[in-house]
Amino acid sequence: MHRLLILSKHADAYRRLIDAAALPRLDVATASSAADALSRAADADIVFGEPSLIRAILPSLSSLRWVQATWAGVEPLLDPSLRRDYVLTNARGVFGALMSEYVFAYMLARERLVFEKRESQQQRRWDTTPPGTLRGKQIGLLGVGSIGAALARTAKSFGMRVKGYTRSSEGCRDVDAYFHGGGRLEFAADLDYLVAIMPNTADTRQLVDAALLAALPPRAVFINPGRGGVVDEAALVGALRAGRLAGAVLDVFLEEPLPAEHPLWRAPNVLITSHTAALSVPADIAPVFVENYQRFLRGDELLHRVDFVRGY
Amino acid sequence: MHRLLILSKHADAYRRLIDAAALPRLDVATASSAADALSRAADADIVFGEPSLIRAILPSLSSLRWVQATWAGVEPLLDPSLRRDYVLTNARGVFGALMSEYVFAYMLARERLVFEKRESQQQRRWDTTPPGTLRGKQIGLLGVGSIGAALARTAKSFGMRVKGYTRSSEGCRDVDAYFHGGGRLEFAADLDYLVAIMPNTADTRQLVDAALLAALPPRAVFINPGRGGVVDEAALVGALRAGRLAGAVLDVFLEEPLPAEHPLWRAPNVLITSHTAALSVPADIAPVFVENYQRFLRGDELLHRVDFVRGY
Repeated sequence: MHRLLILSKHADAYRRLIDAAALPRLDVATASSAADALSRAADADIVFGEPSLIRAILPSLSSLRWVQATWAGVEPLLDPSLRRDYVLTNARGVFGALMSEYVFAYMLARERLVFEKRESQQQRRWDTTPPGTLRGKQIGLLGVGSIGAALARTAKSFGMRVKGYTRSSEGCRDVDAYFHGGGRLEFAADLDYLVAIMPNTADTRQLVDAALLAALPPRAVFINPGRGGVVDEAALVGALRAGRLAGAVLDVFLEEPLPAEHPLWRAPNVLITSHTAALSVPADIAPVFVENYQRFLRGDELLHRVDFVRGY
Repeated sequence: MHRLLILSKHADAYRRLIDAAALPRLDVATASSAADALSRAADADIVFGEPSLIRAILPSLSSLRWVQATWAGVEPLLDPSLRRDYVLTNARGVFGALMSEYVFAYMLARERLVFEKRESQQQRRWDTTPPGTLRGKQIGLLGVGSIGAALARTAKSFGMRVKGYTRSSEGCRDVDAYFHGGGRLEFAADLDYLVAIMPNTADTRQLVDAALLAALPPRAVFINPGRGGVVDEAALVGALRAGRLAGAVLDVFLEEPLPAEHPLWRAPNVLITSHTAALSVPADIAPVFVENYQRFLRGDELLHRVDFVRGY
């Protein structure tokens, strides 16, 4: 018999979904806070939940063998001071659809003058300014994993050209042109939209720096639904203030919640969405656990295993 | 030799595109206003341009055989008092992509709380309100021609369920369920979004009336990038004010420009976009003329011929 501890703000929803899957040889306990979880921590050999909550009880998990995170980002568990004597898997392959909705909501809002038309309406002004279009525009994807592939597919359906920047992979057929390593500035040179969807690792830290921002055309808009650590925020504020960048749509930041005094709140042409681009939906995430538990029982390798050193 | 008169606000752009096509046996004159066009009207056997401009010189076109409209809507030429001794063709099959951008811009803006997040930002408030999603939502298409088919395809790519209301056709495979005739209220019963994309004809006049609006669930949003005549505007204002409808996104109206005193400007949860949903782009429309001119030369039937009685 395995003992699962669900430690999540959505513990009840996850429990219903996991009960419905009728998994064999599984005892389930739930907690929605680290304090609630402590009394059940010693028995659990499996924990399924939010990395920030799990971190708080990590020393008490004396039987721990496997953690399935409900998030894609597992930074709270990667601190080198923390134990690494268990298998860590994250949620992957489930955020593409929501990320597409986010990125296309904001690109279309920009092209279609959604804010401008509303201003005109408030003045009862019949505003026939012609909107723009995504057709023929270029989107650059910093990272082409499962989220990048979903964005690329949607971009093609709107008639866009797609450039992809990856470490080395070129597996997505909806990407028209790939760039790697030193090709970063060439990748950026003619983009209308730059979208950062990379994990936060030593390799991606501040990949969006002053040089990359300077390589973008001034008409470009930067969209970051990925990780705050990928961006040099001071350089971004500078580019926006100087008008060297047409705008930014930012979901994630180095420090969250974004401090009230942070200059990004009021930098020109910035939209801030407070880390809601692709929230973990229990109905999406529970199946990731169910699939992995079946592998766990069989002794197979788990899906989406995180390399503690590489960071994803 | 045929004599073409291009009568359009974009006459120069159309002329460049048509010159580039190097069409045989064609003399081209251009005018960007009815007044400019009058001196060239008597010679032209073909006119390519905006229906409202063409209407003004219709009596002077003494050699007229064919009018190719640059618009989808040809109402200015359908008045029964006007001559009908020529072939009228409209622009069709070219608006699907732009209409998709319009409809999805506004549906995504609603689901993703684009306006609400911006309000929060203006107060420097970290607003983690979870956005909605298009996945699993139902869109109802009033009319499934080429525009409806483009919307249906995009809707499927965002994981929506698609219902279609047509006179009788069921040709689009991206529509999950078809409704006709008396099935109008059943069609409306469980929609999240209702999109009207029908031409303005005797059959479609006020198809969106009090009964149809009452059949929609209160969560539904009505989107009209089609024709104003399809809507009973007083009933729409009533439904919005009573909260029986969650919102409306309106591009077209019975009277345009929408008069400053019209109640729709300030009805609750209305967004007004001033007839810009799918503007005719010369690069899209010129090929329609080129194709039809080649048919005209060969004596073949022209594409997109308008039936003066049926109205489309």
